[in-house]
Amino acid sequence: MLNIFTKIIIVIALLATFLGTISSQEKDLNTLQTARRNLMPVPANVSWKNGRLPVTKTFAVAVAGKTDERLKSYIFRVMRRLEGRTIFEFSRDLSNDPANAQLLIETASTGNAIPQLGDDESYNLEITEKQAKLTAPTTVGAMRGLETFLQLLEGDAGGFYFPAVSVSDKPRFPWRGLMIDSARHFQPMEVLRRNLDAMAAVKLNVLHWHLTEDQGFRVETKKLPELHLQGSDGLFYTQTEIREIIKFAADRGIRVMPEFDMPGHATAWVVSHPEIASAPGPYQIERQPGIFDPTLDPTNEKTYKLLEVFFTEMSALFPDKYMHIGGDENEGKQWNANAKIQAFMKANNIKDNHALQTYFNKRLLKFLEKNGKIMMGWDEIFQPDLPKNVVIHSWRGQKALAEAAKQGYTGVLSNGYYIDLMFPASQHYVVDPLPADTTLTAEEQKRILGGEATMWSEWVSPETIDSRIWTRTAAIAERFWSPQAVNDVDDMYRRLEIISSQLEELGLTHRRNQDVLLRRLANNQNIFALQTLVGLIEPVKEYRRYQVRPQTMLSPLTGLIDAAQADAIGARRFNMFVKSVVTSNIEKQQAPALKALFNDWKGDGMRLKILIENAPALTEAKQLAPDLQSLGEIGLETVEFLQTGKTSSAEWRDAKLKSLAEIGKQKAGLEFQVVESMKLLVNATAGN
Amino acid sequence: MLNIFTKIIIVIALLATFLGTISSQEKDLNTLQTARRNLMPVPANVSWKNGRLPVTKTFAVAVAGKTDERLKSYIFRVMRRLEGRTIFEFSRDLSNDPANAQLLIETASTGNAIPQLGDDESYNLEITEKQAKLTAPTTVGAMRGLETFLQLLEGDAGGFYFPAVSVSDKPRFPWRGLMIDSARHFQPMEVLRRNLDAMAAVKLNVLHWHLTEDQGFRVETKKLPELHLQGSDGLFYTQTEIREIIKFAADRGIRVMPEFDMPGHATAWVVSHPEIASAPGPYQIERQPGIFDPTLDPTNEKTYKLLEVFFTEMSALFPDKYMHIGGDENEGKQWNANAKIQAFMKANNIKDNHALQTYFNKRLLKFLEKNGKIMMGWDEIFQPDLPKNVVIHSWRGQKALAEAAKQGYTGVLSNGYYIDLMFPASQHYVVDPLPADTTLTAEEQKRILGGEATMWSEWVSPETIDSRIWTRTAAIAERFWSPQAVNDVDDMYRRLEIISSQLEELGLTHRRNQDVLLRRLANNQNIFALQTLVGLIEPVKEYRRYQVRPQTMLSPLTGLIDAAQADAIGARRFNMFVKSVVTSNIEKQQAPALKALFNDWKGDGMRLKILIENAPALTEAKQLAPDLQSLGEIGLETVEFLQTGKTSSAEWRDAKLKSLAEIGKQKAGLEFQVVESMKLLVNATAGN
Repeated sequence: MLNIFTKIIIVIALLATFLGTISSQEKDLNTLQTARRNLMPVPANVSWKNGRLPVTKTFAVAVAGKTDERLKSYIFRVMRRLEGRTIFEFSRDLSNDPANAQLLIETASTGNAIPQLGDDESYNLEITEKQAKLTAPTTVGAMRGLETFLQLLEGDAGGFYFPAVSVSDKPRFPWRGLMIDSARHFQPMEVLRRNLDAMAAVKLNVLHWHLTEDQGFRVETKKLPELHLQGSDGLFYTQTEIREIIKFAADRGIRVMPEFDMPGHATAWVVSHPEIASAPGPYQIERQPGIFDPTLDPTNEKTYKLLEVFFTEMSALFPDKYMHIGGDENEGKQWNANAKIQAFMKANNIKDNHALQTYFNKRLLKFLEKNGKIMMGWDEIFQPDLPKNVVIHSWRGQKALAEAAKQGYTGVLSNGYYIDLMFPASQHYVVDPLPADTTLTAEEQKRILGGEATMWSEWVSPETIDSRIWTRTAAIAERFWSPQAVNDVDDMYRRLEIISSQLEELGLTHRRNQDVLLRRLANNQNIFALQTLVGLIEPVKEYRRYQVRPQTMLSPLTGLIDAAQADAIGARRFNMFVKSVVTSNIEKQQAPALKALFNDWKGDGMRLKILIENAPALTEAKQLAPDLQSLGEIGLETVEFLQTGKTSSAEWRDAKLKSLAEIGKQKAGLEFQVVESMKLLVNATAGN
Repeated sequence: MLNIFTKIIIVIALLATFLGTISSQEKDLNTLQTARRNLMPVPANVSWKNGRLPVTKTFAVAVAGKTDERLKSYIFRVMRRLEGRTIFEFSRDLSNDPANAQLLIETASTGNAIPQLGDDESYNLEITEKQAKLTAPTTVGAMRGLETFLQLLEGDAGGFYFPAVSVSDKPRFPWRGLMIDSARHFQPMEVLRRNLDAMAAVKLNVLHWHLTEDQGFRVETKKLPELHLQGSDGLFYTQTEIREIIKFAADRGIRVMPEFDMPGHATAWVVSHPEIASAPGPYQIERQPGIFDPTLDPTNEKTYKLLEVFFTEMSALFPDKYMHIGGDENEGKQWNANAKIQAFMKANNIKDNHALQTYFNKRLLKFLEKNGKIMMGWDEIFQPDLPKNVVIHSWRGQKALAEAAKQGYTGVLSNGYYIDLMFPASQHYVVDPLPADTTLTAEEQKRILGGEATMWSEWVSPETIDSRIWTRTAAIAERFWSPQAVNDVDDMYRRLEIISSQLEELGLTHRRNQDVLLRRLANNQNIFALQTLVGLIEPVKEYRRYQVRPQTMLSPLTGLIDAAQADAIGARRFNMFVKSVVTSNIEKQQAPALKALFNDWKGDGMRLKILIENAPALTEAKQLAPDLQSLGEIGLETVEFLQTGKTSSAEWRDAKLKSLAEIGKQKAGLEFQVVESMKLLVNATAGN
């Protein structure tokens, strides 16, 4: 139960790391902290000034230029957030006195009411001791500037204020997306609304909405209602709801691009229309994760007849110019096994399944073009013969994307941004859609439109989805918006914690729901020790979760693995601390702090054993309790050496490293993230 | 930052209190704990057996008798909650093998699809080692039984199980309500949905929906759209949404009774219709809390013309037989000042404003009766001449209610259940709609239909409303459902904590949102010390909040007063501990625990001072930091006496009691709840 010690000591350690006694990078960090304050994404150009614009209860906003209702509503919401933070009540009316308003917003034009790719999102923000002036060519630019403005709010004994600054900002890439998979696990309207709010807060501008999958068909169709009625378990978005989401997004400068995945990932389609599948069926909604056989039949005219009706209806429903047709992971098994399809290929000189899929895509392209849409698809659609006016969405990587760009295709990168795989933010952060060493020409570089974080939803519920997205996605948003040179990982984490936390004001649940899950798991017991544990463990990475702990799409996502998050904060801080201690050779000096920490781990491990005895939902993870205790015990032995300056024997170290290797193995799909640091400490006992 | 100590020590103390070393009530408490386990409301009859029904992943449910879609959906949701707690994935299909299903539900009839007053809500639940059998005369009875069933889930080293038991249950009162005021602060659909879920979980069966007020007109009217369009700031429920809520409630066995408050509390009405007010206007939506003058003109035929249109429309929209017309707090100022009204009274022999209001009510009654409705109103409508078929809703008290019952009126009690006033659950819990010493005859007693907790919304936002309702309302629900003899306050608190916490699985935010508010207030700083503070303070009671810390309906509700809750848990536990220590004369024995605790308070107080320096939104509460430190210091001095057995001087005690009196005064609308216990301790230093 003493995990507070953990936190305190780690906080102290962290402060030490940042504020001086340890790091040789002290000055640089300080510079970065000052320069970037709490801004995320970091603007293109920031020039700090002396002075501050105080925030008092008479804070007033005026507008000038072309102001539309979207901007007024945006200002209204921003002011409510400013109220929430300051507990002042501001006037709800715009000021009629622009010269004396504390915030003056001037937009040259309203821009497109429904956002489009390439909309001007730039803005300038000049804050003096008298006034903040935000100027932007469009409403959307002003929205982006308002978010920067809010992030600039600071407070101290003198009250709340905005620091004087001159910001000139625009995005590096025009396509900055978050893909939400509403198909594998349906996500209710409020999940989408709050995530759109969070997207706007970090300047993302595309909701890529993955709406059909083997596991569900989530969009209402009036023309072909059997599709959603038989393919969704009743969990679909009505067209009214979809229009509401599109408006909600547009009001935040966010495009909504739907994805209807085909010809593979199509089980939910063929539940009601087995006649357009490439094998006879019947089909049921898929409950497992993975890649499945059901594939639309590209040689059947009925397929196109149905798809034309469908795409015509969807083209009218979704105003965005881009429509994503998926195209991924079609393994062609049904095609290979179907004599009619094979005969068709022979008769039409279609040499392989890739070519057949290109044939299919070209047929689709006609429907889309007829409806004024631009087709987008995953890497696999990039085949010889593919028309140039198709956008490549790369899950394979920058090379594939660059190759497409060289051949004249525009593209968007998602490889490196698969947030469902539970990698740390640092790993996503260093992935650049257009790496510094690119060999693309300036012309080709323009074809790299940006990137998208992808929230595949095999293992997320409405209760946990925010915890998978917003622990890390603000860092990815920075990669898409900020200059390439903004790449300091430590400072990214410093700002990420603050900005992610601020998203809570928009209703995001990534922080608040963790304890809810722990309380439920604890079966009415005190969760202190469990909090210590969950701060040190993370779910297994990549696609290992299903391998080590199989579940279906209908399973409850309320296990310890669901409460655990990527970038476990206790582990991250411990690792930073140990790294700084070891690299600075100050083990002896920091031994008391480490000792207190390890005592906590040991004690919490012991307490967890008892807790788990009365919390059957944690039984699967019960080995983590003695493991935590062992980590504490190994740590205490290690500290004894470090504190006394005695060196350990090779045998002792071997034994400890062996134990740590065991502790490092996953249990219930969870891994301790402190094992490498513990090894460092153990090895440090060998002396210099 | 050491508030964990606080928690640990208090938890230890609490355990000690309950489990043995201290209390002379030990045996009784244990008996109660066993007898009532985690059930709330406690069923009418419970008989525990030996054995347990284990829960494994093959747990199956079968139904027999008359089963409707409502029941199937309810079972579906209960099974998902059982999955969430156990992390098993159960079959989503009902079993075809009733004899071997672990849960068999047999309903004799479906009952009313739209719940009505007096519906049979009884059920029987027999759990053996082989099967749980739930039988009920109606679907709603089965719903009630399913909630009891879920509350019975327990777990230990042997896994999850249901204890063998025989339950025979039915409600004490047929009317068990929660009033939600959606008018003063609009509450979005998801707030209503999650609160309806929570109501069903604790067997409440009436949502009394307060929809019009001086501060807002929240219901869409198709016939008179100016009412909601001009009276709501755009924050109203569409009729589609209202129908959705009615269905959502009906699916949980909950009636929805609307309230349209008149002739007072009517400002939002007369914004668009000043001609039916009793003074000329113009009117704006009211932004202040309180009682206001605008009152409908009961002498103007236009008033009735409009109201007839309105009530006819609303009667069709809301299927419940009861319609609440408010009627409270009409001070008659506009009536007194209006010569035409005075003349009307004279001409019609109406002797005073009460009589005029009765005249008004009788006119309304005609519209309601024409539409098949029964009128309900607050105490004030109970006047001579009031027809007997009107229900009295008492905010004045049991006496007023009993008086009405004697005269033949049915009634519902809300006095004593005003959860907006921030009283502890214990205070509400002891209020009985029909006290044990009632002088009513059996016939008259039947007229006391039940009670309603009232969530008046002057000071609640969607972010905080659950924290005002669900910290205490499960205890009130028990009062309305359980036998009168269920009245042990300590055991109520023990169960309340567990049951309130379980509501989180339904999306309720009363626990999770407190840290969100604290994090925002802390301005990106660590909230440990702030958590200690908020565990010891409560908002001022009754209507003092507005007096000491005025705000309007448009103010942000994100201050420390909004994060603080009634029944502050740290204070409650401290008080229990001190009481047991002092009454058992074991001050010396418990001195080390107290010392550690007071050290934390002192330290956290000091840390809070620094935190508040950088958190301007806490400036208003900054005196609470040195106060917390002083509490710790006074405590430490006290402990010194208690530990050594020395007695203190009268001067010393006077000085400390004086300091405590200062500390006990509200600051920023917040009061330390530990001051009385501290005084007890200080006085204990005087020796015996």
